[in-house]
Amino acid sequence: MKDAIIDCLRKSAGYSSGEDISRQLKISRAGIWKNIEELRRDGYEIVAVPHLGYKLNGIPDKLLPREVAHGLGTAIVGSRVLHYESLASTMDVAFQLGVEDEPEGAVVCAETQTRGRGRMERRWSSPKGKGVYFSLLLRPNLLPTDAAKMTLFSAVAVCEALREFSGLDVHIKWPNDLLVQGKKLAGILMELSAEMDRVRFIVIGLGLNVNTAQRQLPPQATSLKLQTGTSADRIAVMQAVLRSLDRWYAVLNGQGFDPVIKRWRELSSTLGQKISIGDIIGTAVDLDEHGGLIVQVKDGQRVRCMTGDVQPIG
Amino acid sequence: MKDAIIDCLRKSAGYSSGEDISRQLKISRAGIWKNIEELRRDGYEIVAVPHLGYKLNGIPDKLLPREVAHGLGTAIVGSRVLHYESLASTMDVAFQLGVEDEPEGAVVCAETQTRGRGRMERRWSSPKGKGVYFSLLLRPNLLPTDAAKMTLFSAVAVCEALREFSGLDVHIKWPNDLLVQGKKLAGILMELSAEMDRVRFIVIGLGLNVNTAQRQLPPQATSLKLQTGTSADRIAVMQAVLRSLDRWYAVLNGQGFDPVIKRWRELSSTLGQKISIGDIIGTAVDLDEHGGLIVQVKDGQRVRCMTGDVQPIG
Repeated sequence: MKDAIIDCLRKSAGYSSGEDISRQLKISRAGIWKNIEELRRDGYEIVAVPHLGYKLNGIPDKLLPREVAHGLGTAIVGSRVLHYESLASTMDVAFQLGVEDEPEGAVVCAETQTRGRGRMERRWSSPKGKGVYFSLLLRPNLLPTDAAKMTLFSAVAVCEALREFSGLDVHIKWPNDLLVQGKKLAGILMELSAEMDRVRFIVIGLGLNVNTAQRQLPPQATSLKLQTGTSADRIAVMQAVLRSLDRWYAVLNGQGFDPVIKRWRELSSTLGQKISIGDIIGTAVDLDEHGGLIVQVKDGQRVRCMTGDVQPIG
Repeated sequence: MKDAIIDCLRKSAGYSSGEDISRQLKISRAGIWKNIEELRRDGYEIVAVPHLGYKLNGIPDKLLPREVAHGLGTAIVGSRVLHYESLASTMDVAFQLGVEDEPEGAVVCAETQTRGRGRMERRWSSPKGKGVYFSLLLRPNLLPTDAAKMTLFSAVAVCEALREFSGLDVHIKWPNDLLVQGKKLAGILMELSAEMDRVRFIVIGLGLNVNTAQRQLPPQATSLKLQTGTSADRIAVMQAVLRSLDRWYAVLNGQGFDPVIKRWRELSSTLGQKISIGDIIGTAVDLDEHGGLIVQVKDGQRVRCMTGDVQPIG
């Protein structure tokens, strides 16, 4: 009923009379008032003026399912949104949904994570209400050996969304970081559950710094606000990312990984660079068929890296 | 306390007096009696003779943790055994243990499974008390792209155990079946949970027909009893399999996959055969680096299969 009332208020430019709402939604005047009170507690600014009615003046700065779903228009990604004020990690909740046969497209988001994590069990700082932290459940038809490519898929989708939304020159650093001016704007995580010859589900996690201040971040990290100079609407950012993931998922299901890998190469800040990765020093020249990084070392030999941290040299 | 009483009775060739047990275990005579009654309800045959005491005459035909652990002597595999009378599938329980950070080596077994499954969501028939149905949790240090090789590892370990235990000429049919005389004796299943660049855990499932009658099995399946003509002690079979898995896991951790793949080739009934797999017809010639089957087709070309059913031809 709260969703229906918000819809009602959204449709009207001015005030909606209690009488009109009551008639449309078949709810008593007292019932409207009770729901309006609850919506206000959720952070909605709703003005009530005698003889005029109700008016929606502002929505809360929270990734509420109702707001994320409003006008989203995706086919799969975001088909269900679960929102939490605080979670240890959105990954664990989404993974459990996967185990419990939740359909693909479900998104678990939180205003803050107390144990947000990055690759290789590193911490991911998740200041409350400042970022977009979510995990997406997908069930792609894949062999387990191809699952690592889903990291490339998500990096491409998120990178494109952030470029379009912010106009910033966002690049992908192999395998899963999104950088602006060499600083980390977002990190992507992937976990999967598989049988021998098919992936059962994957969970893609995104940690994106939106309105985060520098003092809330490690020195090598940045946020959309720090880069553009203005605060961004987190709901709009999240919708842009979900739409891009949905678009690229359709590409993947229709045309396979080739278009994804082509676009990854264009968006990469790693390929063509002199880098070190672990003990290996050389030039990052390409991706292999599993999403590994091919590094050409001193004697011309090509080495394939499936894990590790890329550091630019010189 | 029940474990301690059984240990006491096992140590003695004849009768153990209630007085001795009472002294050793610091338990009242009434306490002993209560535990003995419970043990009898579990299926232990314990004779009680006035003035002589108690004697263990038989243990139940169940894969009780106490019996499986007795004299097992493994380092990792079977470090903890969980036993159920009936489960939908041992895979689901073991997978959930993996999610919940259970240490590796845990084994979940059941006397029967109501929804026992094989590869590609096929059913696995699990008649009550007739087979060994268990799932093993391991946490190998692997890339997700290498996880499929754990199927080869488990096939080798189980195949060797069954050969040693029964003297039967057991072979591996790619990727995960164990055959005697062309009939299916056991099936192996693998599921995994992974991050982008590391496997978090794998679950290996075994369905092994031990004392199963032909009428309880599909026509293309067989059991140890059907092949050898005598009933086998299911606990001893399970211990043999767990020991072999433990031994091969040590090999894997010490020397990698090479010895596993070498032994797989020796035990395989697939390599060298003319086969069909899906639409592909040719000769199975080798395994590839991920555990896929290499089939040489008519024009000499080599095709790699990661999934499908192998059918012998001619």
